[in-house]
Amino acid sequence: MPISKNQIKLITSLQQKKYRIKEGLFVAEGIKVVNEFLNSDIELQMLFCTDEASAEYEQYHCQLVSEQELKKVSVLKSPNKVLALFKIPEEIQQGDNGLKVILDTINDPGNLGTIIRLCDWFGVKELICSKETVDCYNTKVVQSTMGSLTRVAVTYVDLIPYIKETKQPVFVTDMEGENVYTATLPENGIIIMGNEANGVSEEIKKIVKQKLTIPRFGELQATESLNVATATAILLNEFRRAIGKLK
Amino acid sequence: MPISKNQIKLITSLQQKKYRIKEGLFVAEGIKVVNEFLNSDIELQMLFCTDEASAEYEQYHCQLVSEQELKKVSVLKSPNKVLALFKIPEEIQQGDNGLKVILDTINDPGNLGTIIRLCDWFGVKELICSKETVDCYNTKVVQSTMGSLTRVAVTYVDLIPYIKETKQPVFVTDMEGENVYTATLPENGIIIMGNEANGVSEEIKKIVKQKLTIPRFGELQATESLNVATATAILLNEFRRAIGKLK
Repeated sequence: MPISKNQIKLITSLQQKKYRIKEGLFVAEGIKVVNEFLNSDIELQMLFCTDEASAEYEQYHCQLVSEQELKKVSVLKSPNKVLALFKIPEEIQQGDNGLKVILDTINDPGNLGTIIRLCDWFGVKELICSKETVDCYNTKVVQSTMGSLTRVAVTYVDLIPYIKETKQPVFVTDMEGENVYTATLPENGIIIMGNEANGVSEEIKKIVKQKLTIPRFGELQATESLNVATATAILLNEFRRAIGKLK
Repeated sequence: MPISKNQIKLITSLQQKKYRIKEGLFVAEGIKVVNEFLNSDIELQMLFCTDEASAEYEQYHCQLVSEQELKKVSVLKSPNKVLALFKIPEEIQQGDNGLKVILDTINDPGNLGTIIRLCDWFGVKELICSKETVDCYNTKVVQSTMGSLTRVAVTYVDLIPYIKETKQPVFVTDMEGENVYTATLPENGIIIMGNEANGVSEEIKKIVKQKLTIPRFGELQATESLNVATATAILLNEFRRAIGKLK
């Protein structure tokens, strides 16, 4: 059965956040990414695949589509045999424990995807985002996480009350903070990372006392900032390396 | 004087590597990026700016253009007041000293840009690329480096002879390597990072004896790889942190 006009309309509408919210669905593409979701608790709604991949997806009532049709609804440059719609799971906040990351208004889907993947690598179970942060079910984010979204709980909250209420130690990066290489970093800390252009908002900086600095090694005129995803990588690395030594 | 047809043709042709090589020129856009190049040893060929920015660029014989015209030749979504053509500088190899990074066939301009910026941050003066690696004067790379290209010498070489001839200690990442958190890392090491999909080539792995592993913290099924730029961030961080403690 070829893909119907209504299905095409539905799939392409899910590129927009308001339709994802309305339908409660998001799109995943490509064998690797789709399989990660199929092997998770996230519920499948609809699955389209090409003839070539049909054997692999038989149990999921795969709807066969041609490569041409797949191209029509795909956001990928080279659509890859399978596209599926999954139900957006409920947000479940974890307790006051474990290393966590808070994102203050991250705009770039690629950065969010990279940070979700970093959380997965470093065993961070919860990523807390400001409501202004890009949606984690944005197709570009879903694709760039390579399945890490199935293992990292992403929640969207008002950051100020969250930060005021948490019992975990909270850290921001700041030019005038303590050297991250010599600071004592707790296993269950929360790291706040800020917007690509403006960093962490002043309002948040005011209520967070513990400030960390990643020392810079280049000359005086060297780049004055790291990309937010690479800075997150370095901080998570520092919070985890005491345990990492034992691996 | 409005931008001429020939100028438009020249500027847009420079989006392709073969024309960059033929003309010996590359494009930089936006005040921050253009100014970084103007303040470097790299030679300016031509500068276009809008009326609004003309005072700042008077000394450079700025050719005035309208915002519409700028849009026509820009690769940016929101063209930003100034666009300049610079001469591609000669490649100058540094000596056998200082921390260095080698890239084996990095395809994504965003990854190369992020890695150049990381080199700048960590005081790495030379980035050695395989000839298959994306061109560092690709417009997307130039824009994402935010000026770091003026401080990091990027050279394109045949990697196998380079690695065989260097007197510096060379490292690759590998699943079976020494734990990067406990390994002794020399100040003047060379770190080899591999292609986004395939990692470092087998041929190179064969001739490099020192292998490093970044331990993974997530569950067994967690993501099996880090993005190449974030892995580079973690490795550079580890090679530099002994000095970083003293900052």
